[in-house]
Amino acid sequence: MSLSFEIVAGSEAGGRRGLLHLPHRSVQTPVFMPVGTAGTVKAVPQDTLESLGAEIILGNTYHLYLRPGHELIRRLGGLHRFISWPRGLLTDSGGFQVFSLSALRKVSDEGVRFRSHLDGSSHFFTPEHSMDVQIALGADIAMAFDECTEYPAVRSRAEESLRLTMAWACRSLDHFRAHRNEVVWRDELRVPQIPPLGPGNCAAEGRTQSLFGIVQGGMYTDLRRECAARLVDMDFDGYAIGGLSVGEPRALTLEMIAEVLPLLPAGKPRYVMGVGYPDEIEQYARMGVDMMDCVLPTRAARHGLLFTSEGRLNIKAKRYAEDQDPPDPTCNCPVCRRYTRAYLRHLMQAGEALSATLNTIHNLAYYFAVMERVRKSLHPQG
Amino acid sequence: MSLSFEIVAGSEAGGRRGLLHLPHRSVQTPVFMPVGTAGTVKAVPQDTLESLGAEIILGNTYHLYLRPGHELIRRLGGLHRFISWPRGLLTDSGGFQVFSLSALRKVSDEGVRFRSHLDGSSHFFTPEHSMDVQIALGADIAMAFDECTEYPAVRSRAEESLRLTMAWACRSLDHFRAHRNEVVWRDELRVPQIPPLGPGNCAAEGRTQSLFGIVQGGMYTDLRRECAARLVDMDFDGYAIGGLSVGEPRALTLEMIAEVLPLLPAGKPRYVMGVGYPDEIEQYARMGVDMMDCVLPTRAARHGLLFTSEGRLNIKAKRYAEDQDPPDPTCNCPVCRRYTRAYLRHLMQAGEALSATLNTIHNLAYYFAVMERVRKSLHPQG
Repeated sequence: MSLSFEIVAGSEAGGRRGLLHLPHRSVQTPVFMPVGTAGTVKAVPQDTLESLGAEIILGNTYHLYLRPGHELIRRLGGLHRFISWPRGLLTDSGGFQVFSLSALRKVSDEGVRFRSHLDGSSHFFTPEHSMDVQIALGADIAMAFDECTEYPAVRSRAEESLRLTMAWACRSLDHFRAHRNEVVWRDELRVPQIPPLGPGNCAAEGRTQSLFGIVQGGMYTDLRRECAARLVDMDFDGYAIGGLSVGEPRALTLEMIAEVLPLLPAGKPRYVMGVGYPDEIEQYARMGVDMMDCVLPTRAARHGLLFTSEGRLNIKAKRYAEDQDPPDPTCNCPVCRRYTRAYLRHLMQAGEALSATLNTIHNLAYYFAVMERVRKSLHPQG
Repeated sequence: MSLSFEIVAGSEAGGRRGLLHLPHRSVQTPVFMPVGTAGTVKAVPQDTLESLGAEIILGNTYHLYLRPGHELIRRLGGLHRFISWPRGLLTDSGGFQVFSLSALRKVSDEGVRFRSHLDGSSHFFTPEHSMDVQIALGADIAMAFDECTEYPAVRSRAEESLRLTMAWACRSLDHFRAHRNEVVWRDELRVPQIPPLGPGNCAAEGRTQSLFGIVQGGMYTDLRRECAARLVDMDFDGYAIGGLSVGEPRALTLEMIAEVLPLLPAGKPRYVMGVGYPDEIEQYARMGVDMMDCVLPTRAARHGLLFTSEGRLNIKAKRYAEDQDPPDPTCNCPVCRRYTRAYLRHLMQAGEALSATLNTIHNLAYYFAVMERVRKSLHPQG
């Protein structure tokens, strides 16, 4: 057994409120997952993430594979223990970063050869290797190795990409099923010197990692439908919709999500990858998306863009130089309770490290508040 | 009335334990003051500083004058309110940074003309201007404008520098006495829209800023003695020993401190500026130094140098790549309670912002623990 998903409330529009029971955490859904690329949600300490209410964060397989290396992380007890994060963790497959970050990418049926963006070294990722790396990292949820179709893509290119993604989904699942019980926290005897992580450690209950399939198909609805149907047949633990937010107009993103969602099993978690703005994540959650992740709140924060109830706010702007209001007067986050726009602007102007920390804390709190509002609107449990 | 200093215990070696009652905080001494150059102790949120036990931090007049500007800070209620720091604050005079950071410095009896290290713009600082800037910033303790004598300096150069420092001390004190009641929190009516800072706000008790004189004199004990005697005659609120840790051997630093300390009034706080390593601050505190500040714990942290009970630890070193111990196994700080050396090393290797935050938290906790150990060894109150 891996995850279990309990739906506790729903709306006519399709939105649902649930509890995603993972080995390390029961996560309230719909949930927004902050991105912790290299084993850290940039500039924010783990205890702060906890106090903000983060229940699950992402790790990027591509980054962690390159540095510090998945074998090192496995030897140190897995990613949870390495970064001291006892709650939920999800790793992507590495496919998207190979697609977006690495140089000299060469795709074959077997896998992808690419050069590291760090040192130019050559690496080869196959579905099996992605599974091995993700099992070494040991997140609660791993993702099938896919090829993210670029936008725009002509139909023949989208078809070819989908063919790869389907074949790789099959190989990912086979390899994962054969090895899923090898995750380091599955059997604490492998690291006897390290005590269990605490109440969150469910290894004793016989639980292990889960694997999600990823629906691709570019912006072609029939390809998306075909992909969804075939992945559902394979019986993954959950389903993601990938290949969105890659430059397409937002109406198209929405169309693809609306097309695919009804085809996914109602009893399993549905995850839209890489979205979005606050109003987007609210909209998708109300349609029945259970999980989302995006670098937007954290990356934008580092560039001085704050999300507020009054809209986006560029804290670098001169008009905030003497503004004694908090970033968002209706927000109750630790940053809005303590600091002024004038101070946050000064920190940006002075290039101070605290700027990234405070801006990110606020943006994450804002995203979490959006999801909490959606969850509450879906009842029960207020 | 400005500050009051209450000595609660002492040792034969001259060490004393005290309470420095400032308008915004009663500070336990001996105290180490973290440096918050541009209105932030780099990479550490204010609530973290509070929970670590920081009771007073420094602001740098030179930096804050250049950016965001002292007049802006005054308009926003002073530095305490601008950076949301309700506890003790001390500002230096700007003299040391003009000496160490700025280009094309030109010293005359009147003051110092210098170019900003930020944009090359030309500025002129006089003792009176330094006081005006420090009154605008509104720290609990301001420092007289001095000239920091470089090391090494021939006797004639040290004498000339001392002549300037003495004249400037006189002018600083005159100007400060005439204007000390103009600090923005002295009369909350000046900023009626801003509520008082809380229990720490003692403006209602008629308290205001204090001014410390700075003993210079290079490495010449007779000049140091002469300077101390004349400053004591002027009756400052407290006394600093400046011009140390500028490249001289440590034995010379110690000699200068030992020479000057007995000449300073026992009932007033004694502050050694810009020191030092953990064993140094412990040594000086045991000799009777009440206050110290230094960028070392914070700056070293950003470069991966951690202070521990086992000595200095360069967290970048490859030997820590799989080290699952906390940075300092005997330390109870939030970083040592949660994170491993392996993780901290990874954060440095990956150039992650969290690295500076966590390293700095540990180093400050270590410095605070050193001071707490000295205070406890001096009794009473355990």
